[in-house]
Amino acid sequence: MKKLAAEFFGTFWLVLGGCGSAVLACNYPEAGIGFLGVALAFGLTVVTIAYGLGHISGAHLNPAVSIGLWIGGRFEGKDLIPYIISQVLGGIAAAGILYVIATGNGSAIGGFATNGYGDLSPGKYSMTAALVCEVVMTFIFLLVILGATDNRAPKGFAGLAIGLCLTLIHLISIPVTNTSVNPARSTSQAIFVGGEALSQLWLFWVAPIVGAILAGIVYKALFSADSETA
Amino acid sequence: MKKLAAEFFGTFWLVLGGCGSAVLACNYPEAGIGFLGVALAFGLTVVTIAYGLGHISGAHLNPAVSIGLWIGGRFEGKDLIPYIISQVLGGIAAAGILYVIATGNGSAIGGFATNGYGDLSPGKYSMTAALVCEVVMTFIFLLVILGATDNRAPKGFAGLAIGLCLTLIHLISIPVTNTSVNPARSTSQAIFVGGEALSQLWLFWVAPIVGAILAGIVYKALFSADSETA
Amino acid sequence: MKKLAAEFFGTFWLVLGGCGSAVLACNYPEAGIGFLGVALAFGLTVVTIAYGLGHISGAHLNPAVSIGLWIGGRFEGKDLIPYIISQVLGGIAAAGILYVIATGNGSAIGGFATNGYGDLSPGKYSMTAALVCEVVMTFIFLLVILGATDNRAPKGFAGLAIGLCLTLIHLISIPVTNTSVNPARSTSQAIFVGGEALSQLWLFWVAPIVGAILAGIVYKALFSADSETA
Amino acid sequence: MKKLAAEFFGTFWLVLGGCGSAVLACNYPEAGIGFLGVALAFGLTVVTIAYGLGHISGAHLNPAVSIGLWIGGRFEGKDLIPYIISQVLGGIAAAGILYVIATGNGSAIGGFATNGYGDLSPGKYSMTAALVCEVVMTFIFLLVILGATDNRAPKGFAGLAIGLCLTLIHLISIPVTNTSVNPARSTSQAIFVGGEALSQLWLFWVAPIVGAILAGIVYKALFSADSETA
Repeated sequence: MKKLAAEFFGTFWLVLGGCGSAVLACNYPEAGIGFLGVALAFGLTVVTIAYGLGHISGAHLNPAVSIGLWIGGRFEGKDLIPYIISQVLGGIAAAGILYVIATGNGSAIGGFATNGYGDLSPGKYSMTAALVCEVVMTFIFLLVILGATDNRAPKGFAGLAIGLCLTLIHLISIPVTNTSVNPARSTSQAIFVGGEALSQLWLFWVAPIVGAILAGIVYKALFSADSETA
Repeated sequence: MKKLAAEFFGTFWLVLGGCGSAVLACNYPEAGIGFLGVALAFGLTVVTIAYGLGHISGAHLNPAVSIGLWIGGRFEGKDLIPYIISQVLGGIAAAGILYVIATGNGSAIGGFATNGYGDLSPGKYSMTAALVCEVVMTFIFLLVILGATDNRAPKGFAGLAIGLCLTLIHLISIPVTNTSVNPARSTSQAIFVGGEALSQLWLFWVAPIVGAILAGIVYKALFSADSETA
Repeated sequence: MKKLAAEFFGTFWLVLGGCGSAVLACNYPEAGIGFLGVALAFGLTVVTIAYGLGHISGAHLNPAVSIGLWIGGRFEGKDLIPYIISQVLGGIAAAGILYVIATGNGSAIGGFATNGYGDLSPGKYSMTAALVCEVVMTFIFLLVILGATDNRAPKGFAGLAIGLCLTLIHLISIPVTNTSVNPARSTSQAIFVGGEALSQLWLFWVAPIVGAILAGIVYKALFSADSETA
Repeated sequence: MKKLAAEFFGTFWLVLGGCGSAVLACNYPEAGIGFLGVALAFGLTVVTIAYGLGHISGAHLNPAVSIGLWIGGRFEGKDLIPYIISQVLGGIAAAGILYVIATGNGSAIGGFATNGYGDLSPGKYSMTAALVCEVVMTFIFLLVILGATDNRAPKGFAGLAIGLCLTLIHLISIPVTNTSVNPARSTSQAIFVGGEALSQLWLFWVAPIVGAILAGIVYKALFSADSETA
């Protein structure tokens, strides 16, 4: 129960911080934080929760991360579904709070911070480009997660390395898909916007999970301590 | 006495660095640092004082932090009022120095870096949006503080995680309230500006303290080491 | 083999993250990340791979780094050529993926993120300025790498210091050469663009390697633990 | 000798990285790094040298830092003058290299990255504002340096905290004096520009040294381990 509460609050913060900065501050006139600020915000949600609640639940905050860690042999399958449900609920709760704040000056929410491809891609990138991008980004994200939490990596730095990896992923790919690599984050925004955003949501479950599974397989086979004795 | 001096100098630096960067450098033509730079500045005041004077006083620098730590069982009630007084005085001293520098090219101070809602919100957000935002931001801030300084968290990283959490909070919420989560910081600016800014100051005491108290209760009940044996 | 796979994936990420952010996000209208975002992206590729795969291969990700470490007595000569081949192949694979994504909205790749001097320098800097710049930047980069991985340096921080050094190098020198200090990164972009970009590629092998060799010699002679007993 | 070489190379890097990013990249059209990028660059020169060469010389890179550490009882007086000479020479060497690069596209160096007040202040701040600003900034800088390298502070983090403090100082004060807090950095730029820049140089020796001496006295009296037993 404590673990599920930690995943709930953690994913709540990931969505409120990452999507919130995008919705409220990215394009503010003159002083707006831009994609660089949004990228930093997403990464810092992970940094702060990793050090704040990582000792409770491991701070996955992302169904693709939980699945990748499970495939990589670092997370028990019996906890997988409860974790994913907590993550999705935490994300939706944050989207609700963000809705209250963002409409508090009379604005409409517009596209919120939804992910999309084709017409809904910020830079109008095709579905194929979006698929390739999300699979590859999540693949490397999980390699870094599995590596930085490996017993042979320096102690204590994993939270920084993993959070800053999410920043880096956003620095590259916001123009392509608005960056997901996280089905809970994508779902939280799409259900408030509905319509075409919701009909594209499948890609932001499929691609991150495919990338995460591939990373779990590759890390286990090539880079894990077990692989050395094999 | 040493502790109170450390809180005085630390909050002095938080206000001079955070509000100072906002007043002097945020909107400088062409090369201004924008909200992203101001967010980084606020966070780095905490990072630098946490490593520089954290071993003296714990580097609270914020009445809401002291109250949240007290509710969470990490700080003795007898030190609460002296800490808060030192923080408020340190903030006011910094505002005085900032006044001398900022008017040193003949400029008026305008709104300084005051917090506000409604007409005084940078993005004209309502009092309700401001209240929700400040309560939730301070709630998560204190969860991260209580968690990152927990014995089970990695040693030494708390200063980074907590400072970067303050950066993140600013990345989200500068457009809403100019971001407080810290009654001492708000007070230091409002008393130099007076008028409506001063009449809105109540919210930036009430909301951060409410958020901090909630976090203290939640962390103690759900996530503390004591809660495991309960 | 595991080491070579780690260098392949690591350099893949360096090029996809660094050059990818430059191609996709640097000049995005209104919210583009600019040279500051690109500088951060390059540095974070090194930070993330250093903590994620550093325990496998040392995370060189750069022929000049491997050569500098060899000259400095930290890396065995027999691994040098295989490392360099893996790095170049990883970079080229990333450029291929980036090509697929970047053209996914119908855009041409233009200059990609090639390095250059004279007409191909972002700020039209001469060949001499480019040579001096790349030699000096790589010289200091390798001094920092050799120093931060020295046994006498604080444990665990090398990945951060080295990655942030690459960020710093980009903050200075993108206008001059688009910043290389890494022949594998330069090659990956030049072969997709061809023409004059390819004909200038020699400088981005020669200058980084010269800078790295000088640093290896200087560190070994002046700053290594061996030099103390000499 | 090794220590002096480390201070030479370190201050060389501080000036080349900090002033270089300001001269070459700050105002680049569209993608320029702005004051935020310059602030980050200055801080990262300290971060990288602290981890790269800190175990050799302590990585002062600044006459005011050496003086503050001496007053604070952390640095021997007999090394003070040699350190300061090495720092000034390293800064001048970097300014020479920067001159070669910066003029490599036919540009004049203009004001280089000189510090100044009055007409030479970026934002036209008075001499009094400049004095107050430089004294206070260096005072806190030295408090953070003395605190973060105190035995009671977390091990290994001092390089990050001190470097990021220099970033923070620049985020606040570039508009006021172009930020010095470092006489060697100021001297390196002023002697290439000459004229009025040189005639204002005295302030950027006096103010940082006054701030550093005050911090040495305050830290020793109030916050040092010795002060506890007094």
